[in-house]
Amino acid sequence: MTHTIAAKEDHVDVLIVGAGPAGLMLANWLSRFDIKTRIVDKRGSKIFNGQADGLQCRTLEIFDSFDFGHRAWREANHMVEICLWNPDDNGQLSRYDRIPDTIPGISRFQQVVLHQGRIERFFLDSIKEHSDIAVERGVLPIAFDFDEAKVGDFEDYPISVTLRTLSGEESTPEQRQQHQKSADGQQTAIADGLFRSNLVADNTEDLIKSIEATSNANQEEHIKAKFMVGCDGAHSWVRQQCGFSLEGDSTDYVWGVLDIVPITDFPDIRHRCAIHSANAGSVMVIPRENKLVRLYIQLQATEYQKKGGKADRSWITPKIILQSAQRILHPYKLDYAYCDWWTAYQIGQRVGNHFSLRDRVFLAGDAVHTHSPKAGQGMNVSMQDTYNLGWKLAHVVKGLSDPTILSTYESERRDIAQKLIAFDHRFSRLFSGRPTKDIMDEEGVNMEEFKKAFEKGNEFASGIAVNYDASVLVAKEDETAAQSNDNDILGTQERRAISKPQLATKIDIGKRIPSFKVLNHADARPWHLQELLKSNGRWRMIVFPGRLTDIQNMQRYKSLGKSLGAPDSFLRRFTPPGKPIDSVIEVLTVHSGPRTSIELLNLPEPFHPHHGDMGWDYWKVYSDEESYHEGHGQAYANYGIDPSRGASVIIRPDQYVSWVGEVDDYGQMAHFFAGFMKEKEDDKPEIRKSVQ
Amino acid sequence: MTHTIAAKEDHVDVLIVGAGPAGLMLANWLSRFDIKTRIVDKRGSKIFNGQADGLQCRTLEIFDSFDFGHRAWREANHMVEICLWNPDDNGQLSRYDRIPDTIPGISRFQQVVLHQGRIERFFLDSIKEHSDIAVERGVLPIAFDFDEAKVGDFEDYPISVTLRTLSGEESTPEQRQQHQKSADGQQTAIADGLFRSNLVADNTEDLIKSIEATSNANQEEHIKAKFMVGCDGAHSWVRQQCGFSLEGDSTDYVWGVLDIVPITDFPDIRHRCAIHSANAGSVMVIPRENKLVRLYIQLQATEYQKKGGKADRSWITPKIILQSAQRILHPYKLDYAYCDWWTAYQIGQRVGNHFSLRDRVFLAGDAVHTHSPKAGQGMNVSMQDTYNLGWKLAHVVKGLSDPTILSTYESERRDIAQKLIAFDHRFSRLFSGRPTKDIMDEEGVNMEEFKKAFEKGNEFASGIAVNYDASVLVAKEDETAAQSNDNDILGTQERRAISKPQLATKIDIGKRIPSFKVLNHADARPWHLQELLKSNGRWRMIVFPGRLTDIQNMQRYKSLGKSLGAPDSFLRRFTPPGKPIDSVIEVLTVHSGPRTSIELLNLPEPFHPHHGDMGWDYWKVYSDEESYHEGHGQAYANYGIDPSRGASVIIRPDQYVSWVGEVDDYGQMAHFFAGFMKEKEDDKPEIRKSVQ
Repeated sequence: MTHTIAAKEDHVDVLIVGAGPAGLMLANWLSRFDIKTRIVDKRGSKIFNGQADGLQCRTLEIFDSFDFGHRAWREANHMVEICLWNPDDNGQLSRYDRIPDTIPGISRFQQVVLHQGRIERFFLDSIKEHSDIAVERGVLPIAFDFDEAKVGDFEDYPISVTLRTLSGEESTPEQRQQHQKSADGQQTAIADGLFRSNLVADNTEDLIKSIEATSNANQEEHIKAKFMVGCDGAHSWVRQQCGFSLEGDSTDYVWGVLDIVPITDFPDIRHRCAIHSANAGSVMVIPRENKLVRLYIQLQATEYQKKGGKADRSWITPKIILQSAQRILHPYKLDYAYCDWWTAYQIGQRVGNHFSLRDRVFLAGDAVHTHSPKAGQGMNVSMQDTYNLGWKLAHVVKGLSDPTILSTYESERRDIAQKLIAFDHRFSRLFSGRPTKDIMDEEGVNMEEFKKAFEKGNEFASGIAVNYDASVLVAKEDETAAQSNDNDILGTQERRAISKPQLATKIDIGKRIPSFKVLNHADARPWHLQELLKSNGRWRMIVFPGRLTDIQNMQRYKSLGKSLGAPDSFLRRFTPPGKPIDSVIEVLTVHSGPRTSIELLNLPEPFHPHHGDMGWDYWKVYSDEESYHEGHGQAYANYGIDPSRGASVIIRPDQYVSWVGEVDDYGQMAHFFAGFMKEKEDDKPEIRKSVQ
Repeated sequence: MTHTIAAKEDHVDVLIVGAGPAGLMLANWLSRFDIKTRIVDKRGSKIFNGQADGLQCRTLEIFDSFDFGHRAWREANHMVEICLWNPDDNGQLSRYDRIPDTIPGISRFQQVVLHQGRIERFFLDSIKEHSDIAVERGVLPIAFDFDEAKVGDFEDYPISVTLRTLSGEESTPEQRQQHQKSADGQQTAIADGLFRSNLVADNTEDLIKSIEATSNANQEEHIKAKFMVGCDGAHSWVRQQCGFSLEGDSTDYVWGVLDIVPITDFPDIRHRCAIHSANAGSVMVIPRENKLVRLYIQLQATEYQKKGGKADRSWITPKIILQSAQRILHPYKLDYAYCDWWTAYQIGQRVGNHFSLRDRVFLAGDAVHTHSPKAGQGMNVSMQDTYNLGWKLAHVVKGLSDPTILSTYESERRDIAQKLIAFDHRFSRLFSGRPTKDIMDEEGVNMEEFKKAFEKGNEFASGIAVNYDASVLVAKEDETAAQSNDNDILGTQERRAISKPQLATKIDIGKRIPSFKVLNHADARPWHLQELLKSNGRWRMIVFPGRLTDIQNMQRYKSLGKSLGAPDSFLRRFTPPGKPIDSVIEVLTVHSGPRTSIELLNLPEPFHPHHGDMGWDYWKVYSDEESYHEGHGQAYANYGIDPSRGASVIIRPDQYVSWVGEVDDYGQMAHFFAGFMKEKEDDKPEIRKSVQ
């Protein structure tokens, strides 16, 4: 590729390609650090309606850790109950059963739906509040070069990318209006969502060609980057540059999607419903915000034609989809006057063969996994990819961590992608199949089996089940650890810390820490534990010293305090000079009460550090006891920690549990952090040298 | 007063003078209606720090009804526990007791603190979102005329006001910087709050004179208004124009206020504390947001000099206030490096003799009640004044209600102001007094008495205890109703509806309706009942039909549905033609479950109206049963309603209970609304004429 005009140049720590949910999550994470980040998207504007809409419990927890969970929670429609409908013995469509949507107790949030445009808005507002990172729209990467010689030096820039700014016309995807006759005979304009469905060939190549063909070429810029992350969708340009591919298959099922304000006598239209008709196919009902309901409607083969395995989109219209829904819902009536958005898709289930090029270029979201949208997983898993990656990138760029932690991105997230595809495969088959006619019907889908699969699937679909394997970041003994020879991920045996999971029997190492209410020792205010674990890049060590009125417990706690407060403690060694002592590893305490028998300022100083002009820190010590106004969190019981012995728990910056051990096992704690954290020799404060 | 230049003219429905919390609450209320409103404030900018900061439970409920309660709740510091300190038997300051701050169970919110600048911000954002009303700052009313001849015609404009725009210099109150030496010897600039404390003479007259003296006079405008509301503070210009006065006294106590980030070893600095020293006076500790703590510190007479009963402010500095606090807190240490704001005040306890001039000009907030700030009541009661007034004004302007409802503003709010002063008097005396030395010490304050007064005061201080007397808007038999001859407020006996309070034994007619969780029938989502009662100007009738599986209950419910659905029902008669049937009186149902035994669409149509193109209304019917994820609200038990009989409850647009009666007592419901609601003859739809 030749460049004929002198172009601007820039050096960045991280270049993000694609400003959908995965790209925005990453930019948002990086906005919490002082890191040079740019994010580009070839589209000229953000999403305004339609698209993905389901938010897992886990996604809401993550949003909350970035301080905008409440915005999603307030605006979204909450899905509480699932109703299963199928033909009764007389062939009449009837309600088979009701089950809770989110498994009770699994999270402090429940699954909700809110359209992608609002999610993107929350990210953009959050990014703006914390940084000067701005999404550059209508900007297309057109050339890529990777300098292998520079891969080993993480201060250097092995990635070169040329960006070109598109004209407004080029960056606006084709978006036609459909005029649909509504119930009262009026013409209604409907946004056609097909341009972003996977039935439409991606237009990146077309855009590049269109630029090359144009004599009126727009501005070009050469970027040198330490890292690049491709969040650029199923047809990822970044993935193509790396030479990686998606592996898997398409299914034969074609589905239509309508976002409408329904006019219907179907009684469960505000519940999430899985409806299997006898012979006309299936409908999934997803009630949404603003009185909207999304319908996923299975289309009959007669309603579209195929060309080489792909459906011919020209046959599919909102009218065709609605008619299909009407047949499935018979004898209930369904119509609409207002349609917000519609699309159609064919299920493809694929996973990327690689998620990273030499731990310098990474792929996330649809660029490495595509599947059915019906279970509401896609946007969630995509955002959680970059939520996993963001802090690791930041810690390496900031020089806090060894670059080897970057290898855990692929090992952790590719595993999730594969589980997602397996889940989707199972779920789609059950949902797309016709119901059994009788007990002799072996081809059909048995409703009881479907119900059980749905219930089981709900745990996966909550996002809470994610359980990362052993690595330098996850100190557990599991099959992966026993079998793997991958020292990049696991670290050598000498480097790995050892957990004692029996000290916290209900905390799973590798999973996100569950949340229960505890009281701030200093002011008795109840907090959900997760609210204390904001996504600001800090590691946390939560010390559960048990009952501090027990002498032995207090001794262990004081012993730990002494070690942590020592001039050469790992707290001090891994905290850059001049930074607050809690800025890299924050130490929190949850004792088992009663808080009125202990004075905060009598506890060792590392547990409530003094911040000079800002006085003592009153936000580090908590108590597991009943609040005046919000009940009792029963944290010790719910974590499976014995108040007479206690435990310490190390939590990653993304809230996943790394290590569980004795309250005062300072040695293993130090060993764990030393496995991947970097201590800059030249930055060591004098005080440490004098002690060593 | 003469006007030498041709001035602009405008006609408005409501002119609000003063854009503090009371004025902003009113503008915010009116932003929900299509009413011509202007709001002016002589100050050139909003408040940025300091000032009032306590938010009652009730205020948070009101904020939530305007959709910004969560903003205050998230940003504020939550006060959970009160610690009482006094000298022990050895004269050593010690913790006497702890009590919950907000009485558990009284509200779904607890008392919080957040500075006035943020509250004003929430109002401004909310007003902007719902209207084009904009606060006009640096605008001073300089002339007033009232045309008695026009008082009777509520379509006419009896009020004339001349407004003058100030220059930037004029509208910026004198605000000096204090440079205070901090703990580490650095100079710190401190905003001087004195210019707004009540020790400083109000500068309105000065500003008017300064304008008159200026040849360079700025723009002038003549306003004709139907209504005017003075929210212009303790030195209210509007009150002066009406010839009304504040009645009451000043006390001798002088208090200093510091907003600081404390550096201290006092253990309860993050609790609300009432600290009585043996001989050095009292301190109230109010922990705040952003690590700030507000200290109310009693100053010794030696620390200021008096001139004619008023303290001489020139003697009071942050240093003097701090030293006073240090003496009271001895032997604990207290210092600060950062002071956000400070002021000093002398307690004045006064109530306005009139709250209204012919129900055309109204006074609210500090213009009609002044008192001590320590109990955190002032801003709350002020905002609740205009929350009481706003919907009444709007309903009269819109022609929905008879103007007689305006008389209830003074009867309801002057009573509250008097109770507030009585509370403040009691509270201040106990707080300002020195503690008893022994049981023979009759002049001192006994700590057990103080604690009990504090606990009792907390109910008042929550704002939940407000209980409006009988009137056309509150259908109850109480002493006021029995003794009063004021037909303007009560209506004639024929006009008043009769309640049956025994049908809902835990709902107090005249108080705001308590809130418990109920489930939406259509989607099983739990809602706090109050969340359904948004401040949008609607009256609500909540029907509690009991168990709808009981035939008798269902019959009563259907009977009511039939009456409500009739072409001449009061729902239709009081709803302007062309408006949605729920836009003036919204009918909600809370049945006692189980929801799975009833299909929503089988219930009578008035309980889930059909909105044409938007389909059925799925947000009107709720059930009192256990949710999957958020427990059981037990609404029937908590409201004292028998599920085998039920009740209907009429709620005012401000969430206060008007009437309780039989589920199907359509006659009394119609009678209640007919007592004050207006049916425009010329607006009657054809359908009603044909029926009559």
